[in-house]
This record gives sequence, C-alpha cells and structure tokens, in this order.
Amino acid sequence: MSHEGLSAFCPRYHHAVELIGRRWTGAIIRSLLAGACRFGAITADVPGLSDRLLSERLRELEAEGVVERHVLPETPVLIEYELTAKGRALAPAVEAIAEWAEQWLLEDEAQSLAPEAVATPS
Amino acid sequence: MSHEGLSAFCPRYHHAVELIGRRWTGAIIRSLLAGACRFGAITADVPGLSDRLLSERLRELEAEGVVERHVLPETPVLIEYELTAKGRALAPAVEAIAEWAEQWLLEDEAQSLAPEAVATPS
Repeated sequence: MSHEGLSAFCPRYHHAVELIGRRWTGAIIRSLLAGACRFGAITADVPGLSDRLLSERLRELEAEGVVERHVLPETPVLIEYELTAKGRALAPAVEAIAEWAEQWLLEDEAQSLAPEAVATPS
Repeated sequence: MSHEGLSAFCPRYHHAVELIGRRWTGAIIRSLLAGACRFGAITADVPGLSDRLLSERLRELEAEGVVERHVLPETPVLIEYELTAKGRALAPAVEAIAEWAEQWLLEDEAQSLAPEAVATPS
C-alpha cells in the first residue's frame, strides 16, 4: 500500500522530521504552542529538561526561524519566547503526532497492564 | 495563543515525536509508507542511509511494533518489511510534517536564492 503524495525521499521532509524530533525539541514546541513563553515556564512544563539543553534547543529553533526571542525592557529584564508564523504552522504536525501517540501508545500501555501480562507469584 | 488539546507535557507524545524524529527513522517510515518493502529498496530511496543504520532503525521499529519483518521461503530467501497497523497510522503525522516542510522550508530556499541574497561583485 502506498500513499499518494509521499514520493520517495524529500530532503525538506527529512530536515523537518529530524528538527522536531531532536531530543526535547518536540516537547518544547508543544509547550510553546500551549502558551508557555518564559524560559522557566517551559522547563516547568517539560520534566527532565535542563536549562542548558533548553537554551541550546531554543537557539537552534531561533536559527531555524521557528522561535523568536523578545527582550522586554522591564526591571528586571524579561525575556519571552514566541513561535513565529513558521513555528505556529507546526501545530497540525504536533497534533497529528499527539493523536497517534494517544491512540497507539495508550493501547500499548493498556496491554502491558492487562492481567495476563502482569507477573503473579505462582 | 494556546492550542486546545495540547495540554502541557505528555510522555506519550514525547516518546512518539522522538521516535519518528530519530536520525533516519522519519525517512524510513516515509519510504515504507510510499510502498518500499525490501531492505535494498529502502536504502535506494534514502540517500546517505547506511545498511548498518537501516538495520538498527528497522530493529527499533520492530521493537516498537511499527514494522513487521517477513521472511519468505524462496530461494534465495526474501526478507520484506511492512508497516503494521500502528505504523500505517503514522501517515497523517508524516503527511502533516511533509506539508509543513513543503510550505515553509521551500520558502526559506526561495528566499536564500532571491537576487538580493546573492552576493554580487561590486
């Protein structure tokens, strides 16, 4: 079975899928889509993400034109991160991946919790 | 702006996005969706993908229940790879990423080829 519109290799698709799938990047984009805009709000959203990795990923996403960094002249200075139009346009891809995950990975978890899969002392 | 349905962190989404975004995996899934089923057809589809990495990725995808490996009793033995229902269900996600890439990365390329961006001798 082949899917129309998915011709064989496409370097742009390849770049895109490995951009959003890079370690933590998918979770960071999702957090920004859900409305986080401060550095600390993103780390609070994403358990296990270190400040160092978040900085690195945000810089990569800025370089890709997916995120914009705003420095607000307040005291103390406020730094906010915002998805660009290009970043917000990732929403359908993020939602499609999230739907797949909810359907198929939830099912895996349910199976692994099914009574016959649980080791019981005999 | 926040997206309904994208609540903050979801471990299943996180697993899914990093699974399909792992190096070469997105391209391999796309090649399988487009109809490739032999090992050699996949490496022919995906320039730069080595046999070693393809084997490794296919084993990971088998372990995830995304790909099935069939050994056909012919002479010489034929080995085919097929997406499972769980793997075929990735089509909307792959298509959404491909659409984003076509729209936004094509635009980047067009801009980088625009006359004002080309250095001309003065």
